[in-house]
Amino acid sequence: MRIDVLTLFPEMFAGVFSSSILGKAKDKGIVSLNTVNFRDYSNNKHNTVDDYPYGGGGGMVLKPEPIFAAVEDLPGYRAADDETQLSPKPRVILMCPQGETFSQRKAEELAGEQHLVFICGHYEGYDERIREHLVTDELSIGDYVLTGGELPAMVVIDSVVRLLPGVLGNEMSAVTDSFSTGLLEYPHYTRPVKFRDWEVPEVLMSGHHENVKNWRLQQSLYRTLERRPDLLEGRELSKKEKVWLEEWKNRQKE
Amino acid sequence: MRIDVLTLFPEMFAGVFSSSILGKAKDKGIVSLNTVNFRDYSNNKHNTVDDYPYGGGGGMVLKPEPIFAAVEDLPGYRAADDETQLSPKPRVILMCPQGETFSQRKAEELAGEQHLVFICGHYEGYDERIREHLVTDELSIGDYVLTGGELPAMVVIDSVVRLLPGVLGNEMSAVTDSFSTGLLEYPHYTRPVKFRDWEVPEVLMSGHHENVKNWRLQQSLYRTLERRPDLLEGRELSKKEKVWLEEWKNRQKE
Repeated sequence: MRIDVLTLFPEMFAGVFSSSILGKAKDKGIVSLNTVNFRDYSNNKHNTVDDYPYGGGGGMVLKPEPIFAAVEDLPGYRAADDETQLSPKPRVILMCPQGETFSQRKAEELAGEQHLVFICGHYEGYDERIREHLVTDELSIGDYVLTGGELPAMVVIDSVVRLLPGVLGNEMSAVTDSFSTGLLEYPHYTRPVKFRDWEVPEVLMSGHHENVKNWRLQQSLYRTLERRPDLLEGRELSKKEKVWLEEWKNRQKE
Repeated sequence: MRIDVLTLFPEMFAGVFSSSILGKAKDKGIVSLNTVNFRDYSNNKHNTVDDYPYGGGGGMVLKPEPIFAAVEDLPGYRAADDETQLSPKPRVILMCPQGETFSQRKAEELAGEQHLVFICGHYEGYDERIREHLVTDELSIGDYVLTGGELPAMVVIDSVVRLLPGVLGNEMSAVTDSFSTGLLEYPHYTRPVKFRDWEVPEVLMSGHHENVKNWRLQQSLYRTLERRPDLLEGRELSKKEKVWLEEWKNRQKE
């Protein structure tokens, strides 16, 4: 997979792109990670990439020319109306608060692509023609205000790249699997058995696999009920889970 | 404000902590940003910080000792049961998928603190005693799987620091203000008036302020209806907005 990031702050990406999973995926040749400073595509002598908004108001707006020019100059880029099918068209992703809320399902969808392009604004708005005629996806990572699209792009890139075949070792895949139950993870414990005054629950040291499994499932269910009941909507509960749910509700009433 | 980040990958933070708003806030002395590699607090000769989970299963679990030791060694740290009130107790924030979903309201709450500590795991689970006896807040930035807590910590730090007095200039505050309407932002346009075949809407160049204002509000409402109707729940609509809403609904039926 090829990933290009358009940003005015390429130096923000160096540490993240060379560490941990992203660094390993790059070293293995599974992904190529590139940053493009779109100021290099400014078409004026002052190297500006933004301008005042038509209609007035505060803030600045990113001009269309440098962004279009930078994207169209990427290796392998083909426009949306290019019918030659010589190479796969990249997904051109705009990071912005107005975008679709990013999700694990979207990460899985993007992991099937061969070329992703991220456009990161910083403080500024985007000229609407960028959205309408260049961008294929608008994404937001959550309902909070950030200074730019750089951190959101890193978040999306990490979640996508770790899904590519060959990137994760077995011990890490296991962590992901716990999400597939649709419940939050159960509590984990490791050595020492007693740390200060606090001990590991006895059941986990019993060696009784069925009891351990039941305890963990029950803890996952309770934690999800307490913290994220929305995750349970539309989920089919097993007979055992229904009994625990009733017990939990009765305890809440006490 | 003092911010400490416990991580096994401090090199991921260098570029982000020195660029843009975070770099400026640091240079102005408004925030101090520090990373602590908690491997330095490992209590064994192999420098391990994780171990196998009690009860079996895949994955590794972060041991309690190095995390407790690293947090308790921070300048100004006071335990939750310390009643001396010599200095404000830090908020100790665990980044994890089981946490409360981060929001702008939470960012505003954290911006009122004097000391934030972030604990970032990487692949591993956390020993439950860390959650129970050390951590004051558990946060998740969204429903997607990431490799570690580092990127989420950067996201939370950016959103909090930009709220601190003196960090943002006026032109940037304006961008934030657009969120206070409770609607997604309207489309922005800047020069050129005609880019390729695509022109700026005439109303924005009319110089008629009332019409511009109305067009923008209407576009914000439509965009929110199309993309994030959940944001409108519980929002009081003005008379004008109600008329536009009816027009929009009628158009959807056509």
